[in-house]
Amino acid sequence: MSVKKIVVIGGSAAGAKAAAKARRCDQKAQITIVQKVPDLSMASCGYPYYLGGTFNNRNALLCTPTGVVRDAAFFKKVKDIDAIVNTECVAIDRTSKTVSCLDRSSGTQFDLPYDKLVLSMGAKPRKLPIEGYDLKGVSQLLSMQDTDYLQDLISSETIKEAVIVGGGLIGVEACEALVARGIKVTLLEAAPQILPMLDEQFAALVVNHMKAKGVQVFTSMKLQGFVGKAGAVAGARLGDGTVISCQMAIVCCGIQPNTELAVAAGLTTGITGGIVVNEFMQTSDPDIYAAGDCVECKNILTNRACFAPMGDLANLQGRVVGQNVITEQSAQFPGTTQTAICKVFDFTAGVSGLTSRQAEAAGIDCIESSINASPDKPGFMGAGLLISKMIADRKTGRILGYQCIGNGDVSRSVATAAMAIKGKLDVIDVSCADLPYAPPYSLAIDHFITAAHVMDNKLKGNYNTVSAKEVKEKIEAKEKVFFLDGRSPDEYEVMRLGIGEVLIPLGALRSKLDMLPADKSAEIICFCKISLRGYETALILREHGYTNVKVMEGGIMAWPYARAV
Amino acid sequence: MSVKKIVVIGGSAAGAKAAAKARRCDQKAQITIVQKVPDLSMASCGYPYYLGGTFNNRNALLCTPTGVVRDAAFFKKVKDIDAIVNTECVAIDRTSKTVSCLDRSSGTQFDLPYDKLVLSMGAKPRKLPIEGYDLKGVSQLLSMQDTDYLQDLISSETIKEAVIVGGGLIGVEACEALVARGIKVTLLEAAPQILPMLDEQFAALVVNHMKAKGVQVFTSMKLQGFVGKAGAVAGARLGDGTVISCQMAIVCCGIQPNTELAVAAGLTTGITGGIVVNEFMQTSDPDIYAAGDCVECKNILTNRACFAPMGDLANLQGRVVGQNVITEQSAQFPGTTQTAICKVFDFTAGVSGLTSRQAEAAGIDCIESSINASPDKPGFMGAGLLISKMIADRKTGRILGYQCIGNGDVSRSVATAAMAIKGKLDVIDVSCADLPYAPPYSLAIDHFITAAHVMDNKLKGNYNTVSAKEVKEKIEAKEKVFFLDGRSPDEYEVMRLGIGEVLIPLGALRSKLDMLPADKSAEIICFCKISLRGYETALILREHGYTNVKVMEGGIMAWPYARAV
Repeated sequence: MSVKKIVVIGGSAAGAKAAAKARRCDQKAQITIVQKVPDLSMASCGYPYYLGGTFNNRNALLCTPTGVVRDAAFFKKVKDIDAIVNTECVAIDRTSKTVSCLDRSSGTQFDLPYDKLVLSMGAKPRKLPIEGYDLKGVSQLLSMQDTDYLQDLISSETIKEAVIVGGGLIGVEACEALVARGIKVTLLEAAPQILPMLDEQFAALVVNHMKAKGVQVFTSMKLQGFVGKAGAVAGARLGDGTVISCQMAIVCCGIQPNTELAVAAGLTTGITGGIVVNEFMQTSDPDIYAAGDCVECKNILTNRACFAPMGDLANLQGRVVGQNVITEQSAQFPGTTQTAICKVFDFTAGVSGLTSRQAEAAGIDCIESSINASPDKPGFMGAGLLISKMIADRKTGRILGYQCIGNGDVSRSVATAAMAIKGKLDVIDVSCADLPYAPPYSLAIDHFITAAHVMDNKLKGNYNTVSAKEVKEKIEAKEKVFFLDGRSPDEYEVMRLGIGEVLIPLGALRSKLDMLPADKSAEIICFCKISLRGYETALILREHGYTNVKVMEGGIMAWPYARAV
Repeated sequence: MSVKKIVVIGGSAAGAKAAAKARRCDQKAQITIVQKVPDLSMASCGYPYYLGGTFNNRNALLCTPTGVVRDAAFFKKVKDIDAIVNTECVAIDRTSKTVSCLDRSSGTQFDLPYDKLVLSMGAKPRKLPIEGYDLKGVSQLLSMQDTDYLQDLISSETIKEAVIVGGGLIGVEACEALVARGIKVTLLEAAPQILPMLDEQFAALVVNHMKAKGVQVFTSMKLQGFVGKAGAVAGARLGDGTVISCQMAIVCCGIQPNTELAVAAGLTTGITGGIVVNEFMQTSDPDIYAAGDCVECKNILTNRACFAPMGDLANLQGRVVGQNVITEQSAQFPGTTQTAICKVFDFTAGVSGLTSRQAEAAGIDCIESSINASPDKPGFMGAGLLISKMIADRKTGRILGYQCIGNGDVSRSVATAAMAIKGKLDVIDVSCADLPYAPPYSLAIDHFITAAHVMDNKLKGNYNTVSAKEVKEKIEAKEKVFFLDGRSPDEYEVMRLGIGEVLIPLGALRSKLDMLPADKSAEIICFCKISLRGYETALILREHGYTNVKVMEGGIMAWPYARAV
């Protein structure tokens, strides 16, 4: 058998992984990576942390766990892979099976023949038609070059204020990074909420946390453009005309798959704009594979196409491609549950699977648990808070989605959920799941299991709930509602909603039923700190003949609006 | 319908949960808890942390998340449950459906009638026939009383040295607690390893960590008895006659289900000694349920009876019982995967499912991944180490077990594994799983997914491994083996095994093949820090015609024996 020629276009996550895996599967193959930029194998998800000063060594973004920079020499020596950097692939000739390359430093062009070609060109920023985009101090935060540029700017110590445009994952991470560098940060989001992976109420709670950390956050706020002074950005003009002063602006308005080459070569792209691949990550040309942010992915819960530009998926897809270019159809990538996680100061926000908005859009009849708030472990171990919601198929009870935020161990909770969703577990399965418990790590009943218990109660009709938003709307509409806070007077003194609620501690309720409305059909909304006592309160009221009793989801901890105290 | 009478014997985890859930399901039922000791709802897994000074408020072990002690008044006021403390249930009359109780303070006896009875008497220590057991300063660490006793003793500041007998979960947690209080600790374990839930090599690595924290650990070491002085313990006499000086000894030699009452009442117990229950947690008498440490559980992977005295299972079973005593057969408890986790100083040790020892004992043909060691997240985020092993069914690839130790995020990894096992996922499923990734939380390819990749390679025959133990045996037998360390000279200088290995950095290997044995059938064992480079080294050697090449599992990080440096 002749030596197989494999060319990989793009040497970041997916491409570098595909090349390395191909080498492990075939020690003889001739493997070449063509990389447009100078660096290889960049840990691009680490850019915000480098910018924020979590670490100061740029090479840490480029090196192996033992500190060796993955440059062209490394790829040659350790992996026997030719990595050609600063070189752009300008065309693919599928008939002759060659790619044309342009050395960006010398300007020379050359062709590379391939038996199997791998496309891993990643994604590019979605550019907004905004005035002042070219001013000094305005950048994205997508490439090593962007990061170097912003790092230099921050290190010059001339940046006192920054504006971040876009409240997605990168925008939110960038906020934390800049605050850590002592910069006053304003976040602008055009949509009504940040972090579109989350429900509105969860996103609002994250915004509250960001505000507590000193970030100014505007949602439903369009950017008109940047205002310059001597060629450098001096402000961001909002839709309402206000100008926010800034010496730096980071535009994080989303990305789109980088597919010009593929389109020019006549490969099929999909409705998301990404390159269409089959389960083997093969494009419409069976000798051409694609992986990473340039492909269209499949959501395995909806069976619909989606764009899922995540670093973990890029690596997993790259591994599959690396196997298949050596042994055809030997590995499959089944798709994604669109799991994501993001650190936001002391909070973490994570999600796996669908929100009910997404499930409904896909025609799935689903039910939401109410919002569940609880400590992540016993208070005596220094607990953090977890606030979560579960989505399940109404008919089968199968868990379809989970979102969780808080300063507790969100990472474990979302990883648990991701596996439960992947394993097609239903609410009953999770209700009795056997998760690792010891006081340093969780409550005796893990928060995710409690979420299933809440869902179980709701599916059985034992738990009639109302969201904080609905409560707020009732207050604004001046509806006649009896709000019952079931906590203790001490708790009430230090923190309370101030929405006209009546305090009746749960322990006193049975002897104070005379404080309740005489009309048994009066609307009563119960809550407490996290709404467990609110739930027990509601059960007692129902037992005493009240017919319109609801529990406010997640209690005071999930209330995203202003409070009296 | 008349008011249902529910009597619960035992008010710790399972009993208190069953009573509380029963109340939520039925506001009218008459619910009584009979509790032998003064306290209720004790967070018993927290005892070692109270002892170690993680917190100083005893009530924290007994209170709700908002700080209210769950005493009899709390149960009455908040839950409308009668909790009778300091009262022992001495007999069950199944014909008249009454239990006889003895008030331990007054000595009065009284009967309680029941419609449904719940047995949650927990477990009791397995007492060893050891001399000096009654000396002052010798205690178990199972009850609140034990904890109070030990806390007083430590607070008296007369304890300089302590001996802990038994290296199970509680023994190991007790070591950390006492070291935190400035006590010199010796751990004695009669078996060849501590933490029987783990494989021997993992347990040995945990012992190394404990030794680094100043604990003296003896395995395969029997205790002859305690030596006294003026009625107080002064030493522990080992099997070899040595006396270890100590002023305190904690005996943690396991527990057994507390079943005298059940046996006397003629209820069926099983081979583990626990009360036999069906999937509804009903005993052989359908009006009597049982939950918690007194029951015999089912391992859902082997379908065999097991004893699983874990706080989380007690709570989950209690919840199931609470539902079923109100609405018969409305909830099921399917069994356990015997998931467990334990903090050992800066390490965590966790397991879910079977070890291969257990799988083989159950007649399952299984395969082990090699040991996988990796950082839990990128080095630039301050990574911890994870060392793990996966067990799968050889025919189906279904994951049956996972164990993980290290100073990294073991909790997330074992929770992930527990759900994968519960969801009956196989190695290929996990190979492409979509877990939450961002640099603060994991590597781009999560450690658990990498474990699946290692298993995948092994199932495909691409990965021929040898354990550290086998390597040590080869060295002791003076077998002729070429040991190849594939790391860099810098790494070699600061840490090396010193087993006669030859250093050939992976990057230099292709140009230094002349350093290898001329005989292509020579046995070559490759390794590096974690054995990823060891794996790549082996692939290159195989390509160059070497036929007997192996990789040492987990590399230097999983080597539990003495090293040269």
